[in-house]
Amino acid sequence: MKRKIVKKRMKKVGAPPGTLQFTGENKTDKVVVEVVRFDGQSLEEISLDPEQLQQIETSHEEKITWVNVGGLHDIRVIESLGEKFQIHQLVMEDILNIQQRPKVEDYGRDYLYIVVQMLRHDEQTGEVHTEQISLVLGSNFVLTFQENPTDVFGEVRKRLTEGRRIRFMRSDYLAYALLDTIVDNYFPILERIGNEVEALEIELINNPTPSTLAKIHHYKRELLLLRKSVWPIRDVISALSRDESNLIASETRVYLRDIHDHALHIIDTLGIIRDLLGGLHDLYLTSIGNRTNEIMKHLTIFASIFMPLTFLAGIYGMNFEYMPELQWPWAYFATLGLMTAVALGLLLYFRKRRWL
Amino acid sequence: MKRKIVKKRMKKVGAPPGTLQFTGENKTDKVVVEVVRFDGQSLEEISLDPEQLQQIETSHEEKITWVNVGGLHDIRVIESLGEKFQIHQLVMEDILNIQQRPKVEDYGRDYLYIVVQMLRHDEQTGEVHTEQISLVLGSNFVLTFQENPTDVFGEVRKRLTEGRRIRFMRSDYLAYALLDTIVDNYFPILERIGNEVEALEIELINNPTPSTLAKIHHYKRELLLLRKSVWPIRDVISALSRDESNLIASETRVYLRDIHDHALHIIDTLGIIRDLLGGLHDLYLTSIGNRTNEIMKHLTIFASIFMPLTFLAGIYGMNFEYMPELQWPWAYFATLGLMTAVALGLLLYFRKRRWL
Amino acid sequence: MKRKIVKKRMKKVGAPPGTLQFTGENKTDKVVVEVVRFDGQSLEEISLDPEQLQQIETSHEEKITWVNVGGLHDIRVIESLGEKFQIHQLVMEDILNIQQRPKVEDYGRDYLYIVVQMLRHDEQTGEVHTEQISLVLGSNFVLTFQENPTDVFGEVRKRLTEGRRIRFMRSDYLAYALLDTIVDNYFPILERIGNEVEALEIELINNPTPSTLAKIHHYKRELLLLRKSVWPIRDVISALSRDESNLIASETRVYLRDIHDHALHIIDTLGIIRDLLGGLHDLYLTSIGNRTNEIMKHLTIFASIFMPLTFLAGIYGMNFEYMPELQWPWAYFATLGLMTAVALGLLLYFRKRRWL
Amino acid sequence: MKRKIVKKRMKKVGAPPGTLQFTGENKTDKVVVEVVRFDGQSLEEISLDPEQLQQIETSHEEKITWVNVGGLHDIRVIESLGEKFQIHQLVMEDILNIQQRPKVEDYGRDYLYIVVQMLRHDEQTGEVHTEQISLVLGSNFVLTFQENPTDVFGEVRKRLTEGRRIRFMRSDYLAYALLDTIVDNYFPILERIGNEVEALEIELINNPTPSTLAKIHHYKRELLLLRKSVWPIRDVISALSRDESNLIASETRVYLRDIHDHALHIIDTLGIIRDLLGGLHDLYLTSIGNRTNEIMKHLTIFASIFMPLTFLAGIYGMNFEYMPELQWPWAYFATLGLMTAVALGLLLYFRKRRWL
Amino acid sequence: MKRKIVKKRMKKVGAPPGTLQFTGENKTDKVVVEVVRFDGQSLEEISLDPEQLQQIETSHEEKITWVNVGGLHDIRVIESLGEKFQIHQLVMEDILNIQQRPKVEDYGRDYLYIVVQMLRHDEQTGEVHTEQISLVLGSNFVLTFQENPTDVFGEVRKRLTEGRRIRFMRSDYLAYALLDTIVDNYFPILERIGNEVEALEIELINNPTPSTLAKIHHYKRELLLLRKSVWPIRDVISALSRDESNLIASETRVYLRDIHDHALHIIDTLGIIRDLLGGLHDLYLTSIGNRTNEIMKHLTIFASIFMPLTFLAGIYGMNFEYMPELQWPWAYFATLGLMTAVALGLLLYFRKRRWL
Repeated sequence: MKRKIVKKRMKKVGAPPGTLQFTGENKTDKVVVEVVRFDGQSLEEISLDPEQLQQIETSHEEKITWVNVGGLHDIRVIESLGEKFQIHQLVMEDILNIQQRPKVEDYGRDYLYIVVQMLRHDEQTGEVHTEQISLVLGSNFVLTFQENPTDVFGEVRKRLTEGRRIRFMRSDYLAYALLDTIVDNYFPILERIGNEVEALEIELINNPTPSTLAKIHHYKRELLLLRKSVWPIRDVISALSRDESNLIASETRVYLRDIHDHALHIIDTLGIIRDLLGGLHDLYLTSIGNRTNEIMKHLTIFASIFMPLTFLAGIYGMNFEYMPELQWPWAYFATLGLMTAVALGLLLYFRKRRWL
Repeated sequence: MKRKIVKKRMKKVGAPPGTLQFTGENKTDKVVVEVVRFDGQSLEEISLDPEQLQQIETSHEEKITWVNVGGLHDIRVIESLGEKFQIHQLVMEDILNIQQRPKVEDYGRDYLYIVVQMLRHDEQTGEVHTEQISLVLGSNFVLTFQENPTDVFGEVRKRLTEGRRIRFMRSDYLAYALLDTIVDNYFPILERIGNEVEALEIELINNPTPSTLAKIHHYKRELLLLRKSVWPIRDVISALSRDESNLIASETRVYLRDIHDHALHIIDTLGIIRDLLGGLHDLYLTSIGNRTNEIMKHLTIFASIFMPLTFLAGIYGMNFEYMPELQWPWAYFATLGLMTAVALGLLLYFRKRRWL
Repeated sequence: MKRKIVKKRMKKVGAPPGTLQFTGENKTDKVVVEVVRFDGQSLEEISLDPEQLQQIETSHEEKITWVNVGGLHDIRVIESLGEKFQIHQLVMEDILNIQQRPKVEDYGRDYLYIVVQMLRHDEQTGEVHTEQISLVLGSNFVLTFQENPTDVFGEVRKRLTEGRRIRFMRSDYLAYALLDTIVDNYFPILERIGNEVEALEIELINNPTPSTLAKIHHYKRELLLLRKSVWPIRDVISALSRDESNLIASETRVYLRDIHDHALHIIDTLGIIRDLLGGLHDLYLTSIGNRTNEIMKHLTIFASIFMPLTFLAGIYGMNFEYMPELQWPWAYFATLGLMTAVALGLLLYFRKRRWL
Repeated sequence: MKRKIVKKRMKKVGAPPGTLQFTGENKTDKVVVEVVRFDGQSLEEISLDPEQLQQIETSHEEKITWVNVGGLHDIRVIESLGEKFQIHQLVMEDILNIQQRPKVEDYGRDYLYIVVQMLRHDEQTGEVHTEQISLVLGSNFVLTFQENPTDVFGEVRKRLTEGRRIRFMRSDYLAYALLDTIVDNYFPILERIGNEVEALEIELINNPTPSTLAKIHHYKRELLLLRKSVWPIRDVISALSRDESNLIASETRVYLRDIHDHALHIIDTLGIIRDLLGGLHDLYLTSIGNRTNEIMKHLTIFASIFMPLTFLAGIYGMNFEYMPELQWPWAYFATLGLMTAVALGLLLYFRKRRWL
Repeated sequence: MKRKIVKKRMKKVGAPPGTLQFTGENKTDKVVVEVVRFDGQSLEEISLDPEQLQQIETSHEEKITWVNVGGLHDIRVIESLGEKFQIHQLVMEDILNIQQRPKVEDYGRDYLYIVVQMLRHDEQTGEVHTEQISLVLGSNFVLTFQENPTDVFGEVRKRLTEGRRIRFMRSDYLAYALLDTIVDNYFPILERIGNEVEALEIELINNPTPSTLAKIHHYKRELLLLRKSVWPIRDVISALSRDESNLIASETRVYLRDIHDHALHIIDTLGIIRDLLGGLHDLYLTSIGNRTNEIMKHLTIFASIFMPLTFLAGIYGMNFEYMPELQWPWAYFATLGLMTAVALGLLLYFRKRRWL
């Protein structure tokens, strides 16, 4: 099934702000909440059930707490965490509302709320899906919310466990590392689309068929939807890196600038693929014109040669009593000769016109 | 009847500013004015006739007064309210002039004047209509003016009556809630259009007909008019949320930022639908080319095969006295064989050219 | 005669700035100068000949003087007024040079110079003409210069005579009223074009002819020229309403903001008409493709059916001595039957291909 | 020979900045340097050979010195002047490098360096050529450098000689007058192109030929190159008129604002011509479609009428022994009648389909 | 092999920032590091192996050190230099990651990091390749990193050796000279592409073939990739010339302004080539239409003339017993005359319609 261009919003029109309602597909799996608490010295990692969320310690201390929620269909999880970390109702609503446009919202000294869209390639359908990732960055905590419990942050968790540099940094660096992972994830997707579009280009040049046209349209549509998810990431990262929020250390801003470059790179690439697809469409349209031309030329040459010949044969097929040529003994061969001459003359004419 | 692209303005050219004249369709229904006065403790709700408007209390007090006017064809209502709440003549003119572009106007300490366009789907014609909603926000009052007395604000009234959060907030939060309702209303309309355009896409790919083209044009036109009404909403909300007006508390601005995100989302979606429609038009044009191609190929193959054969038959239809072949006993069958060979040769040739 | 896309400038290249030379059509009518002097108490209205311009009083007093010049072909009028009101040479040159782009120029404390283009519909040719209106706003005077002595400002004069609000305001309000009249004048023109384009749309859908294409091109061209005249009006009004000039009172700026909204509305509408015309062109191109397709289908079906039949007839028209079928008594009817079968088979084939 | 879209740069890649090398065509004519020195009281005008440039007095005095160099192929001239007026090496390099983009460079208190492109219509080829004009404005001198010694500044020199206003102004006003002359020069060129494009429009509507298409392409190309030269002039004038340089008196800025309006006017006009050309191309493409349609209709009508008739004739041309109709005496006339009926029926059918 | 539109990034998604990994093709050649140390008095030039990098002196002194690394596949070189000159990990990662978008990064007092893309024309394939050049500018050192050890900076080295002006300037001037060389390198490439596109234009006008279309597409694609590499150079140079970094002296900024002009020139030229290519595509599409038209006209004229004639011949080929005309002695010649008349009449008709 194709992705819809406008997804259904399930929130009732006129419902008060902060109405918590998950707008995605409802599932029955248990939501798993993973909590990592660490400082330079130690790290503890636990998985909690929705009921156990009260166990998370949030006292203002040196340790950094990272809570990763995989799945949004259990509203209680969001409510408990929202209460524990004192998150604004609107943020909680946005976390659950999975058609968010990527954005950053600054809630002053308390926290920053960041929404981005992760891309995921579906091996079966060959389509690219987007998944909303919400990230709440506080002075000593980071909350991440995923639609589905995937292991997209596995690499970051590994670096934490292995006691790499990230262990000795504050929560802003952790947030950076998570965002970096998401943006890095765009590259293989773009690469795959790029390769597919290039394969399409070769197909178009060698043997265009109507299905080539359908594929061009398919990728244009995909790109349209992709752009919607990816385009605003630039503004998100740009807002973060120039934000005056005291939650982000100036040292971390250098790293954000790096993601910003990646975002620009991605947007450039999207633009190039879009322009290339537009060029492919133009090429297709023009090559159809070329082929129609070719076919018409063929028809015209055939018709132009055989119509006079058939007419000549027709003349001597007439049954008039008095047609002197009919009695001439060499008339038949002369007629055949005339026919050959007419045909050759026309062929020469077409050659001269460069139709042959 | 289709919507006009340029609506008639009835104001006489050169008339002084502030000339009160309703520019919509005149009706004979009585205009109903609903007044809700509330604070955290109590709420009273009354319906007034145009003659009773003097009863509205406007003393500077803690209670918030919300006056909702359903129908603009009775100028006396606007005049009475304008006088009572000391509204500028130009604002009153704009309220009555229903082709306003969405905008905010700041009348200093006294009030803000906000115009937006509400979308309404007409079930019968399948068209989307716009209706102008004017909103005047004062320190302790909100006036709303609708073209037709619909229950678009019903949900907000219910939240007020039920004593929800909105009861304990000031007039700016009420204005926010009303605007939020209007913007939320755009989503189901967009969703419907999106679905219809996707149905059109499927029709185009499976079985394009000239009526498909007419539909693509129809939606392009609809979108053009829709964009005009919806596009400026972003600037309206953006102006409100960064406005220095003391009528909007900083706490409310967080909520306005939320509407702003919705507005951006809507504009993105309009853009995607527009691009998709453009893509569908291109696809249509190109698939016509493909079909013409297909038809031409058919014609050319038929003509190329039958024209030489008919010519051959024509030759032996000639009445020359001396045509040796005619007497040969096996000549007829040889000719039939030759014809078959020619036909097969041409078929092979077309297959080689991939026309078959 | 069509309007030129680039009008002739008559000023000699390299002539010094401030060279007074009227660039429009020269006429022999006498230029009529109307002077209105008023304050809240009294109003006097006189018509002067070019020679009598010295009679205008310009002492710094409370009364507002409005001088309306109808016709620019008499340079002496401009010179006399320029001298009397101490207008810069460049302004006088611009007043006479009727291909000005709409603009505002701030000459400090003394006056503002405003140029706009008025639209006028020519009933005979159905074309829209532009006429330059120059307006000089001083602290107690307003000068207006029209290309032709039309009564475009009649309504404003009437409001002055009738002692309406405008009588009690300063010169800036008078200037506003005049500009408002000009901008209001755009609406009926746009409405007319909008209606004509919609009529064209209906013609295109029902019965497109090559003349429909010519009309689409005609309106695109008209719009191109119109846009040039109308587009900059936004910047003019915007510059006026945010200008720090002390010649415009803050109270008047509220009114200018109102014209600004009208200007935005007009620009939006121009954009919509342009996009609609673009859509009509695309629709036309595509519907030609559709019709070519239709015609080709017709030809192909005809040819595909009759070419095999004619070939069959040709075979039995051959004069071979030994053709056994010719002697069979039922052969003729069998051949007719075969022909019918071939024709029906082909019809079925085309129906299956949805060509019929 | 057509103008190249990318002109050759002769400077060796990696050569140090300030390498003086003329990049245009080398000529053998002697470069003529004209020097005009003037103040309100007196004016002297001399022509110097390249060897005599040391004679120019440059002492800081009240007199304004204007040096006009006609021809850039003698590097010594540039070097001498550069040394005399203490011009930066980079400026001298840019003066000689005639593919400069129009620009202003502020060298602080000393001078402003301005490059613009002058347009010149070549009567023989009908093409528009650009010529670079460099202008160095100092506090009491103006240097102008032209590629070819044309009399473009003749009118300004005349005004100087005649002791007009320009004689009593400073060097900034002289520079303004020279720039004004260059920009004024654009109008007749644009007018000519506009007229040619309009003639093309009439040709296209009345009798389009393949050469019409070639002309449209030609003008699109011309405009592309023209735009490159003319477009940046706006920024140049705009930079000059808002520049804080103390070399330009505030009084002169009023005049620069006037050129700025002209520049905007020129850019608007270029845009209109470009859009019109785009429209002409679309019109051409669509009218080809129309004509193909017309031709196809013709062919289809002919074929549809004659193919059934020929088939009928073919039937009765068959040589079956037993064809009862052949013996009927009125059969021939009946067949002719049937053929007429078929032809008329098909004509009626095509008329009903509006193909006739 | 064509260039990929999206190049592979080899960095593992989720790897920590600063992971040093070369993303280009791995080679086995030894990386050669060239070190030039100079001041006004003396200059020493040495080539070092990767193992000898510790020999580079970096004490804070007056001498300028320029280290040029030709080849990025030996990570140890980057690491040694990074350590020696205290370069941030992210910069080192970017140097190795050869799909960087051109950019400048300001690392405060220490150094500026600049990435640009150099263009190189491959003589064999006729394609344009990009190569990343990284440049690190410190107060007394410049590091340059090239993908391949080419002699692009040879000219600069020569100027250094010869003791030209560059020897007496600081490191910022050296960096300018290197950037200038890279940007200057763009001109011959653009000139070549411009010439090829113009050759294509002539081919298209004289004798368009399907391969012309393929070439147009090829250049559009090339330009798309080129633009990606070249476009951001403007921002890079612009950022450098207005940067407040104390590493760049104000005197050098004048020179940077010069490169900035070149960058604008290059971008203008890219835009013109792109627009020209778009125009060529349109021209191709339209000229196909023209040719189809021409071919159709040919076919229609042939068919319209021969179909009636063949029909006439067919009539008198019928075998009806009673056909009075057949016995008339002059009937055959009358028929031939009628046929000629019909043919001539049709030719006249087509001439009148301007099809001939």
